[in-house]
Amino acid sequence: MERKERYNVAVVGATGAVGQKMIQTLEDRNFPVEILKPLASARSVGQFVSFHGQQIAVEEATPEAFEGIDFALFSAGGSVSLRLAPEAAKRGAIVIDNTSAFRMDPNVPLVVPEVNAEAIAAHNGIIANPNCSTIQMVVALKPIYDAFGIDKIVVSTYQAVSGAGQKAIDELEQQVRGYATGELLQANVLPVSSLPVHHQIAFNAIPQIDVFEENGYTKEEMKMVNETKKIFNDPTIQVTPTAVRIPVVFGHSESVFVKTKRPFTMDAVRELLEQGEGIVVVDDPASQKYPLATEAAGKREVFVGRLRKDLWDENAFNMWVVSDNVLKGAAWNAVQIAETIISDLA
Amino acid sequence: MERKERYNVAVVGATGAVGQKMIQTLEDRNFPVEILKPLASARSVGQFVSFHGQQIAVEEATPEAFEGIDFALFSAGGSVSLRLAPEAAKRGAIVIDNTSAFRMDPNVPLVVPEVNAEAIAAHNGIIANPNCSTIQMVVALKPIYDAFGIDKIVVSTYQAVSGAGQKAIDELEQQVRGYATGELLQANVLPVSSLPVHHQIAFNAIPQIDVFEENGYTKEEMKMVNETKKIFNDPTIQVTPTAVRIPVVFGHSESVFVKTKRPFTMDAVRELLEQGEGIVVVDDPASQKYPLATEAAGKREVFVGRLRKDLWDENAFNMWVVSDNVLKGAAWNAVQIAETIISDLA
Repeated sequence: MERKERYNVAVVGATGAVGQKMIQTLEDRNFPVEILKPLASARSVGQFVSFHGQQIAVEEATPEAFEGIDFALFSAGGSVSLRLAPEAAKRGAIVIDNTSAFRMDPNVPLVVPEVNAEAIAAHNGIIANPNCSTIQMVVALKPIYDAFGIDKIVVSTYQAVSGAGQKAIDELEQQVRGYATGELLQANVLPVSSLPVHHQIAFNAIPQIDVFEENGYTKEEMKMVNETKKIFNDPTIQVTPTAVRIPVVFGHSESVFVKTKRPFTMDAVRELLEQGEGIVVVDDPASQKYPLATEAAGKREVFVGRLRKDLWDENAFNMWVVSDNVLKGAAWNAVQIAETIISDLA
Repeated sequence: MERKERYNVAVVGATGAVGQKMIQTLEDRNFPVEILKPLASARSVGQFVSFHGQQIAVEEATPEAFEGIDFALFSAGGSVSLRLAPEAAKRGAIVIDNTSAFRMDPNVPLVVPEVNAEAIAAHNGIIANPNCSTIQMVVALKPIYDAFGIDKIVVSTYQAVSGAGQKAIDELEQQVRGYATGELLQANVLPVSSLPVHHQIAFNAIPQIDVFEENGYTKEEMKMVNETKKIFNDPTIQVTPTAVRIPVVFGHSESVFVKTKRPFTMDAVRELLEQGEGIVVVDDPASQKYPLATEAAGKREVFVGRLRKDLWDENAFNMWVVSDNVLKGAAWNAVQIAETIISDLA
C-alpha cells in the first residue's frame, strides 16, 4: 500500500454489534478516512450509519463494492469473509477480518499489535483479528512471556453476551425486563443461535460458547488454545480453557493461572504489566480495586488485577483480566492493525 | 445423644436466607421433628415461620432457649455462633454450625457427609458445616480422590448472590428492576456489606467474595484452600482458587481443573462420578446438556459435567460443577449431618 493522506475504508457488517463499534472507533481515533463505505447484506440496504456527524447509506456487500478501497474491515460472519475477503484483497484492499474464517490459515497473519505487530508484514492482502477472549489474554501475557516464558495457562472465562452479537444483547435485555415484570423468560438465541437447544442467560452461567468439538472442548475454547500458539509463534504454550457465558452485556473477564518457564518475583510481574503496552493494572485489594466489566466497558485497554503468587507453585501466579470484548476484543484491535500499517508507511 | 422417635430442633437465624431453607429442608426431608424452635435476634421476634402448615413464632436466641434442644442449626453469623453455640452444646444440643466460626478449630469436625461422615463421631457438641463453594467441590472430588489421589486443583467460581444473604438477593433484584425501568443502579451491599466500597452486581462479575487477606487471596478463597485439606484430612491437596460473584440468584458454578496423583482414564472418571454419592452427571455436549445454575436451583444434588481430559497433562482433567449454594452448600448439608447422626443411632 502507498502512503496517503486519507484512506478509503469499507466496513462489512456495518449494522452489526461489532461493525457499529468499528465505525465508532474509526471516528474516536480520528482515523484518516477519505471515504467510509458501510457494507452489509442486501436486507440492510436502506439503513444508515452515523460517522463524524454524517449519515451514510449502507450499501450491499458485493465484490465490486471493494473497488478503490484501501482497508476492508470484515465482521459479518465467517461465510461472508470466505466469499468476499479474497475479492476485496484482489482489488487491492487490505482486509482485516474479525471472523474465524482465516485465523488458522498459515498464509494469513493473526495479529494483536501489542504482541506480534511484526507479523503484519507477511500478509497477502488478508490479516486476521483473533477471537475476543484470546486477544485480551495474550495482551496481558505478553510482558510475562517475554521476561519469563510461559509453560501453562489454565483460564476460565466470564464472557459478555455481546460476543454473540446484537441478538444476544437483545435476548438478555428481554429476559431481564421480563423478569422485572413477572413474565416467563424466553430463550431463542444463546448459547448458539443455530443449534436446537437454547438456555436462559439471565441469572445463569452457560458453559458453552460456540459448538462442541470431538474432544469435548468448545470451538471457543479451542480458539484460545490454537490462536495463542499462533500469535506467540510458539507451539509449546499450553492453554487449558473453560469458556462460559454470563449475564454481562459488555466486557469479558478471565481468571488466569499462569505457570512460567523461569522463576519470577511478583514485584517484577507487577512492574512488567504496568509497563506493558495496552495494559492498565488495577490492583489494590485494600481499596477494593480490581478490574470490573462494568468499568472496562467502552475503554480500549486491557485491565489486569488480583495479581497474586500461586500458593503452591513458585513458578506460577494468578490474575484477573478484563477488557471490552467488542472494542479491544474486536473493533479496536482491527482499527489498531490498520493504524499500525499506516504508521509503518510513514 | 439417645435415640428418640422425634427430636427438638432449634434453627438460629431462622428468618435469614439460609435459616428459611433449613426449615424448608427439615420439612421436605420429613426430618423427625418434635418441636421446631425458630430463633433469631430480638428484632425478629414477632415474626413467624411456616413449618408443615403451622405458623411458629420466632423467639429470641438466648442461652436458655437451647434447654431441651437436641439439634441446634446455626446460621446467624460467626459472632452469634461464637457466643451461643457453646451455650447450646453445654445444654446437651448437638450444634451444626453453618458459619465459619469453628470450621478450622481442631476440636470441631468439618463435615460433608458424602466425603467424611466418619469425622462426625469425634465431635464435642459442635460440628461445622463447610463453606458453600467448598462443599460442592469436595463432593465432586471425593470419588476421584479415592481412586486416583489429588495433586492440584485450579478452581474459578461463578457464585450466586444468595451466598451473601437476603440483602444481596434484594440488591440484585433492585438493580435489575432499576435497569428495566431506566433508573440509576445503586450498590450498597456487595461485594461485602461491611466494607466501604460497593460495586454493581447486575451485568458484572466481581472478583471479591469476603475480605482480602495479607497474601492477596480473599477469605472465601482461603476457605476453599484450608477447608478442602481438613475435610479430606490431607494437607497435601493443593487448591488454587479464584472466587467471583456473578448476577445469579441461586446456584454456584465452578470451573475445576483437577490434576491427580495417579493415571486415570476419562471413562473411569465418568463412571466413578456417576456412582458417586450425591452427584448427578449431566454431560452430553451433543445434546447441549451440562449443569446450569438455573436447573440446579432448588435441588439437593451436586451436578457435574463438561468432563474432558486436559489437552496437555495426561494426569489432569476439567469439569464444571454446579449446586444450589443455599441447599447443598448450606441448609441441606446441615440437615444431612443431623440425618447421618440419627441414622447412626438406629
